[in-house]
Amino acid sequence: MSDKAQIGVTGLAVMGRNLARNLARNGHRVAVHNRHRERTDELIEQFGSEGEFVPSHSLRELVDSLERPRRIVVMVKAGGPTDAVIEELVPMLDNDDIVVDAGNANFEDTLRRESSLAERGVRFVGTGVSGGEEGALHGPSIMPGGSASAYRELEPILRSIAADVDGTPCVTHVGENGAGHFVKMVHNGIEYADMQLIAETYDLLRGVLGRGPGEIAETFREFDRGRLESYLIGITAEVLDHTDPRTGRPFVDVVLDQAEQKGTGRWTVQNALELASPVSGIAEAVFARSISGQVRLRQAGRNLPGPSTPAEQPDPERFVADVEQALYASKIIAYAQGFNQIRAGSETYDWNIDYGAVATIWRGGCIIRAKFLDRIRAAYDQNPELPSLLGDENFRQALEQAQDSWRRVVATATSLGIPVPGMSAALAYYDTVRAERLPASLIQGQRDYFGAHTYRRTDVDGVFHTEWAGDRSEHGA
Amino acid sequence: MSDKAQIGVTGLAVMGRNLARNLARNGHRVAVHNRHRERTDELIEQFGSEGEFVPSHSLRELVDSLERPRRIVVMVKAGGPTDAVIEELVPMLDNDDIVVDAGNANFEDTLRRESSLAERGVRFVGTGVSGGEEGALHGPSIMPGGSASAYRELEPILRSIAADVDGTPCVTHVGENGAGHFVKMVHNGIEYADMQLIAETYDLLRGVLGRGPGEIAETFREFDRGRLESYLIGITAEVLDHTDPRTGRPFVDVVLDQAEQKGTGRWTVQNALELASPVSGIAEAVFARSISGQVRLRQAGRNLPGPSTPAEQPDPERFVADVEQALYASKIIAYAQGFNQIRAGSETYDWNIDYGAVATIWRGGCIIRAKFLDRIRAAYDQNPELPSLLGDENFRQALEQAQDSWRRVVATATSLGIPVPGMSAALAYYDTVRAERLPASLIQGQRDYFGAHTYRRTDVDGVFHTEWAGDRSEHGA
Repeated sequence: MSDKAQIGVTGLAVMGRNLARNLARNGHRVAVHNRHRERTDELIEQFGSEGEFVPSHSLRELVDSLERPRRIVVMVKAGGPTDAVIEELVPMLDNDDIVVDAGNANFEDTLRRESSLAERGVRFVGTGVSGGEEGALHGPSIMPGGSASAYRELEPILRSIAADVDGTPCVTHVGENGAGHFVKMVHNGIEYADMQLIAETYDLLRGVLGRGPGEIAETFREFDRGRLESYLIGITAEVLDHTDPRTGRPFVDVVLDQAEQKGTGRWTVQNALELASPVSGIAEAVFARSISGQVRLRQAGRNLPGPSTPAEQPDPERFVADVEQALYASKIIAYAQGFNQIRAGSETYDWNIDYGAVATIWRGGCIIRAKFLDRIRAAYDQNPELPSLLGDENFRQALEQAQDSWRRVVATATSLGIPVPGMSAALAYYDTVRAERLPASLIQGQRDYFGAHTYRRTDVDGVFHTEWAGDRSEHGA
Repeated sequence: MSDKAQIGVTGLAVMGRNLARNLARNGHRVAVHNRHRERTDELIEQFGSEGEFVPSHSLRELVDSLERPRRIVVMVKAGGPTDAVIEELVPMLDNDDIVVDAGNANFEDTLRRESSLAERGVRFVGTGVSGGEEGALHGPSIMPGGSASAYRELEPILRSIAADVDGTPCVTHVGENGAGHFVKMVHNGIEYADMQLIAETYDLLRGVLGRGPGEIAETFREFDRGRLESYLIGITAEVLDHTDPRTGRPFVDVVLDQAEQKGTGRWTVQNALELASPVSGIAEAVFARSISGQVRLRQAGRNLPGPSTPAEQPDPERFVADVEQALYASKIIAYAQGFNQIRAGSETYDWNIDYGAVATIWRGGCIIRAKFLDRIRAAYDQNPELPSLLGDENFRQALEQAQDSWRRVVATATSLGIPVPGMSAALAYYDTVRAERLPASLIQGQRDYFGAHTYRRTDVDGVFHTEWAGDRSEHGA
């Protein structure tokens, strides 16, 4: 038997290190390399007993220590650093060797890299890895994109290190080239929307009912025992329940209310706009974070008044039940929008993505993991061509049951001056999608009036223009 | 005196032709050129008597017919065709000649072209021109970006052909390089938001009060006599009042309710995301147009139910007054967001844009022309460094007066199931900006919990991380 390593990892910051440990702990012989050898030595010293590591002090050594076709995971910073490592690596590789970019690449970079490496005979796999440090170590959700042949060479290894839900590992071949990083991007966008909706829920329970963070933590724990069960709801309860050791005050009251972001939410919305796939839930979440950080804007806004006649406080028990419905309904919309963006991407880039399989691999390991994803999987199992999750009978029923509560919550927030951009955008989307007629016909009329942009008719095929400045007759265009 | 032409125009489709006629009618000797000479001949034949035209049958002829430094307006399709004409033109030019791109370029292309032409000694001006065919002929709003020296050479000519409001021509030097096309892009984004808000207003008056398009046209005419007076409100009344000659039905009822778009709204939102400048009003307008055109999605949505208990119909007179307030308040938000994007662009690209001057040149010629822009100009006259229009005392008062009505309208629409994505996003923005505390602190807590992304505190400077998986102590990071 060869004493070569089965897989190599270059880039041993916390994500790469934990991924390497995960591989070793699952019985793989792992060659490890880092630009600064101290990191490599540290890994061996601290965790060498966890499995079989082959320390390499140069990329050359790493390459030479691997069985063929080689499998090399690059886990360095997205952008320039990733390109630099790939460029150094590729000349050392043989035909059909496999380079895996497991960083947070923009899928358009992955498209470019895959095509460039394919020309040079190297198989490139861009893979989303979600779950943070803990996930990388104990089982992430893995979203690989690349050729089917490359995936086959990686599959047994990836299945062994991925999160496992009911015996199913959270990894699947998402599609060719950029599909994996694309799906990871939308995952993060959905995560933004989900977090925003949870934040609004907290804000409502506090602002409308006057409850404290500790009480609200209890409410989230109750939610977590029901259909909203999810990692994010669970950690929300933990964060709300935490008391700041320095001041003895609720932790959320001492944290600066300026949310930060790393850019994947923004990418998701920018791409959705490119694909003409509406994602208002994600957009409002990105905007809400931006506003929170704009100090000058918020200072200018401090003088703006709230409602002059305070609305009646609703019955607390009923309001909590209503809010649970509003959160659940808004969450369905956010996921419906996200999955439609995945559909639009799949159609645009020819990826043939299995939407149910994506829902399946998000059930474990990643930040948005939740029972909820089983319901999405079931919807796509029922009808793989579902044009929207809103067309699924189970989700339709849930929305039917939720909608009166949802409307009450948005109306209450509106009357009381509590911002619920996510929930109200979700409800507006719901009402737009179900409308028999939309005022878009007026917009078409305006466009034809000022720019001769033409319009179509409900009763006759063709494209028409009205002579607005003349006798207002209609002409085919 | 030289018999050379003062300015040349290449590209004689309707916009270029009308701009050339506008120049000639205002006493300029205009050299005209088109790739296909028929267009040139046609222009001379039909409109030659309007002024002094110099027909040119090649770019070489065009260049030779111009006084120096030459001024050449390129009015061809954005993108590749514009690049092609510029590349053909530049080798024929002398130092300090001026090329004006008056097409609908993306400002990033303008940045690239300006920098490339500057290296080759040619002055490049990318200018937004708004007002469509009629504007180009009778007086558009002109938004030129480029060097101050190039602007000086063009200024008298541009002032003579621009729209005029109270003796002030609608043209100003917006800023260097891409500033003109950038401001034109945001203009179009605001136009999307404005049109969406008007469409929602119509939809509300129809859906809530059951009024017909003709009656609603009358309401818009009333609005047009008040503070909402604008070109868009005026043409809305015209479109709503129009009867389809073919069927005798209201025109808006025979037009297909699928709104189209050419992409500048999308660009605006994509750029706003890049600049972290929230533009929810524009985003919702772009999304609403997209949804309206998605037939499969809307078919899937047809089964979704509306409110189960119909809300009470409000008093009609009061509701109309409320809707006017809601429209006005939402419009303030849309413009505040747009002007903040201009500010963000100006700061990012070092353009030093005069926001009040931008408002001034939008008062005439362009699609969003309105008395309203005088109020924006006044706000920036009062305080050029205003961090948001919401910080202006006059707008603050208008919002204060409007907000109860605005809340009632959004709550009513929410209860009745009429989608108002623009108005509710605007209200959510208002309530977010004025909030004392935002639930962004919870989001920071979640991010620190699952990704060790750290947070800041309200009471102590620094960046912190809590050991969530451990003893929950806090460490400086």
